[in-house]
Amino acid sequence: MKAAAVNLRVRYAETDQMGVAYHSNYLVWFEVGRTNFCRSCGFTYAELEEQGIYLPVVEVHCRYRRPLRYDQEFRVLTHIRELRKRFISFGYVIETDDGDTPVAEGETRHVVTDREGRTTVLPSEYRDRMLNHM
Amino acid sequence: MKAAAVNLRVRYAETDQMGVAYHSNYLVWFEVGRTNFCRSCGFTYAELEEQGIYLPVVEVHCRYRRPLRYDQEFRVLTHIRELRKRFISFGYVIETDDGDTPVAEGETRHVVTDREGRTTVLPSEYRDRMLNHM
Amino acid sequence: MKAAAVNLRVRYAETDQMGVAYHSNYLVWFEVGRTNFCRSCGFTYAELEEQGIYLPVVEVHCRYRRPLRYDQEFRVLTHIRELRKRFISFGYVIETDDGDTPVAEGETRHVVTDREGRTTVLPSEYRDRMLNHM
Amino acid sequence: MKAAAVNLRVRYAETDQMGVAYHSNYLVWFEVGRTNFCRSCGFTYAELEEQGIYLPVVEVHCRYRRPLRYDQEFRVLTHIRELRKRFISFGYVIETDDGDTPVAEGETRHVVTDREGRTTVLPSEYRDRMLNHM
Repeated sequence: MKAAAVNLRVRYAETDQMGVAYHSNYLVWFEVGRTNFCRSCGFTYAELEEQGIYLPVVEVHCRYRRPLRYDQEFRVLTHIRELRKRFISFGYVIETDDGDTPVAEGETRHVVTDREGRTTVLPSEYRDRMLNHM
Repeated sequence: MKAAAVNLRVRYAETDQMGVAYHSNYLVWFEVGRTNFCRSCGFTYAELEEQGIYLPVVEVHCRYRRPLRYDQEFRVLTHIRELRKRFISFGYVIETDDGDTPVAEGETRHVVTDREGRTTVLPSEYRDRMLNHM
Repeated sequence: MKAAAVNLRVRYAETDQMGVAYHSNYLVWFEVGRTNFCRSCGFTYAELEEQGIYLPVVEVHCRYRRPLRYDQEFRVLTHIRELRKRFISFGYVIETDDGDTPVAEGETRHVVTDREGRTTVLPSEYRDRMLNHM
Repeated sequence: MKAAAVNLRVRYAETDQMGVAYHSNYLVWFEVGRTNFCRSCGFTYAELEEQGIYLPVVEVHCRYRRPLRYDQEFRVLTHIRELRKRFISFGYVIETDDGDTPVAEGETRHVVTDREGRTTVLPSEYRDRMLNHM
């Protein structure tokens, strides 16, 4: 299973008064990971939407193991867990260089829809590119 | 000059590691103030967009006088500063009950555009409702 | 199981280019739900932190069933799923008036820590107030 | 006047239903620009806060000239406009490669405070490093 990696730093805006990154930002970082994953597969998610194909999130799960602090560098590793005609599931690991255990692990589940939100089928062209990356 | 008032509380997500509300959130609260202002005028901003009329922000200014803390209640007062055919400027005051000086003051400037982003004219129906509120 | 309810509206800032509320905001609304739940129990979460007691999120799960649009009103219902000495789990339902099925359902899991992030025990005073609300 | 440059891409979370980056995010990007500016001067803003020196924002201004879309790459150029003992002002330009006019221009004004929010003096060490970069 190949994962695509993207490096980020915690923004000040992403911290909260506990002095660590607020938990909902991890879902945004997962999204940055997905965008980067598509690019690694040879297309952009923006291009997919221009074709009228959308991948709305229908379920998320995230387990937080270690906090991240302001300006700390981390890596989002994104991989495909499941790829079906009308459904995709991505898995994520967030890690830093200074630690053995991952910072967080998560999963997002997506249905394939058209512009109006009706479920549809992921065009084989994009499916193949994702499969080639698995 | 009549102002429309809306009450909010600082969300934990809106705090930063300084222990106060992060400054970019004030712009979001101004937007909640604008939405509320339109409702006070007898229409919704959502309805305006459904008519193909958009009010993108072209300029913002905010002066922060006192910090706001998590769960603190505050009030956004929104009024119109200038109303022209192709341009609107809103003014905002953020205040709390426990203080003489306002928490913050700001202004947003908007052009009137259609769905494609071309400048257009604010339909007189909406203009009149806003004028009646001034 | 008593749930505490809080009413919110989707902010423009919370929408994305799909025209619906972006999924990570639901976690922020859950947090507003928790803050409100504590208030219903007779204390504030802010007060808990002033006592040196923190409830960092260690796991989240959310299932999205129907999209929410800009300015749409919704309700966050928060209840306690599990309450132990060093651990709390909250459950959430997001619903609107115009629909039979909930918009979303979720869960957050929290450990009890001190200011330095070491696990500790939830003071019985707060535990009792939460238990009384269950 | 030397400016420090940092490259970013618009996140999906940062778009709104108008299909462009929501305006409050520009303030967050300015903050990423400041963080990067400090690093270019040979210190980190995190380090400054560890020394008990804070730079809260007391005023912001931003002029939006062209919209940014999801996944679009842009550059934040940050420079110092004014550097005094108890006060700093940063200027920002946001630009892309595919355009002559900048996307946006802005300014943030900061006072120097200690941990308790009392105004203080920026230690000469940090002042000198910033001056060397001007």
